Amino acid sequence: MSIPSSRQAALDSIIQALGYSFDGNILIGGNYVSVAQENHVAYVSGQIPRVGDTVVVTGRVGADVTLAQARRAAQVCVVRALLLLGQSLNGLDGISRMLRINVFVQSAPDFTQQSEVADAASDLLHTVLGKAGQHTRSSIGVYQLPKNAAVEVDMVVSTHAP
Amino acid sequence: MSIPSSRQAALDSIIQALGYSFDGNILIGGNYVSVAQENHVAYVSGQIPRVGDTVVVTGRVGADVTLAQARRAAQVCVVRALLLLGQSLNGLDGISRMLRINVFVQSAPDFTQQSEVADAASDLLHTVLGKAGQHTRSSIGVYQLPKNAAVEVDMVVSTHAP
Amino acid sequence: MSIPSSRQAALDSIIQALGYSFDGNILIGGNYVSVAQENHVAYVSGQIPRVGDTVVVTGRVGADVTLAQARRAAQVCVVRALLLLGQSLNGLDGISRMLRINVFVQSAPDFTQQSEVADAASDLLHTVLGKAGQHTRSSIGVYQLPKNAAVEVDMVVSTHAP
Repeated sequence: MSIPSSRQAALDSIIQALGYSFDGNILIGGNYVSVAQENHVAYVSGQIPRVGDTVVVTGRVGADVTLAQARRAAQVCVVRALLLLGQSLNGLDGISRMLRINVFVQSAPDFTQQSEVADAASDLLHTVLGKAGQHTRSSIGVYQLPKNAAVEVDMVVSTHAP
Repeated sequence: MSIPSSRQAALDSIIQALGYSFDGNILIGGNYVSVAQENHVAYVSGQIPRVGDTVVVTGRVGADVTLAQARRAAQVCVVRALLLLGQSLNGLDGISRMLRINVFVQSAPDFTQQSEVADAASDLLHTVLGKAGQHTRSSIGVYQLPKNAAVEVDMVVSTHAP
Repeated sequence: MSIPSSRQAALDSIIQALGYSFDGNILIGGNYVSVAQENHVAYVSGQIPRVGDTVVVTGRVGADVTLAQARRAAQVCVVRALLLLGQSLNGLDGISRMLRINVFVQSAPDFTQQSEVADAASDLLHTVLGKAGQHTRSSIGVYQLPKNAAVEVDMVVSTHAP
């Protein structure tokens, strides 16, 4: 039995606290991939807060969805992205530095706390990756997202492997 | 007379099926460029479904624009991006790997099939580029786009040339 | 007393014309950074038109905010991004090439001049950086932005330093 890295252990704790099971592969449907890596940079496709077949937080933040629920949605998106990166890079220690995250928030017309939603994503990255998790980000209020997801997060990461 | 590469031949077939002519240079108006390349990475500016001087699919997807029309719009955006990359990289064989596409869809408030719009872009890339077309993507429902375009697509590509 | 580079001098002139003071550090609040640089590429977090503690242009462009005001907002965003890059890269001469800007415009439903807003950002980059300022861009009309900002701009830049 292998001992999880400290990054993986931190992620496992977060997943346990969220109360969702992410067992099994994360599947995608179309002619695209979850992670594309070349020349020490990996791109991660936009993740919505899906667990298994269910999008667990749907609707418009500031109307149907509270700030707290949206923050939880952002955490699920980031957990998915980290799990995908771990699969692709042979573990989370393959991440050299988180370079960019984009946090898209399906917003009510007067909801202006997109940064507070994104803070939940940023905090999670700091918890799991420490200094390597220091990233730039853009927080954007959008009109809709696939499958009525409340939040979508994508990433660009620098990697140790070529 | 030069023989087109298999990638260019695939793109030519798609253009013929779309029924538009993309002859002549694709012009842009401002102090920016269509493709910026450095260190084996090329960025492509956001493309709207313009043919010559006309944006061929305008309006809000799910209201004024059907899913089928939006998918066609996404295809025109990708065709434009590939033509621009071909001009810049001395042919489509200059593409090493499609890393990321962002698909922005001008959406009706309850339109949640942004992924199905983006699938048309992903499928086209797979047809033209094969394995090199395997990309990550984010699909986003936005409120408006330049010139009332229904769809906008941008790209990041790794290149063989430095 | 050091002589400012020609790029810095151009930026200083623009700041003076805008009539805002950007003295002091530009602070951010969360577990993220303004600039992340690795392998000759720097990412800049999305900038809103904030001066000190105040977002100087708020609201929906095409309704509460005119095109001229939105263009001014885009200029403030780019000034902030350039100041942050200058701090991080030991001066603006550390910029090798502007690769990408994303210009997000909080839009009225029928406002379709996002490109004209972005032109103000592109022109400013050309004025300050000349040929190195030639970038790709995506202009997107979004539903909301953090703190009700009218415009948000982020960047990817290639750098001389590793």
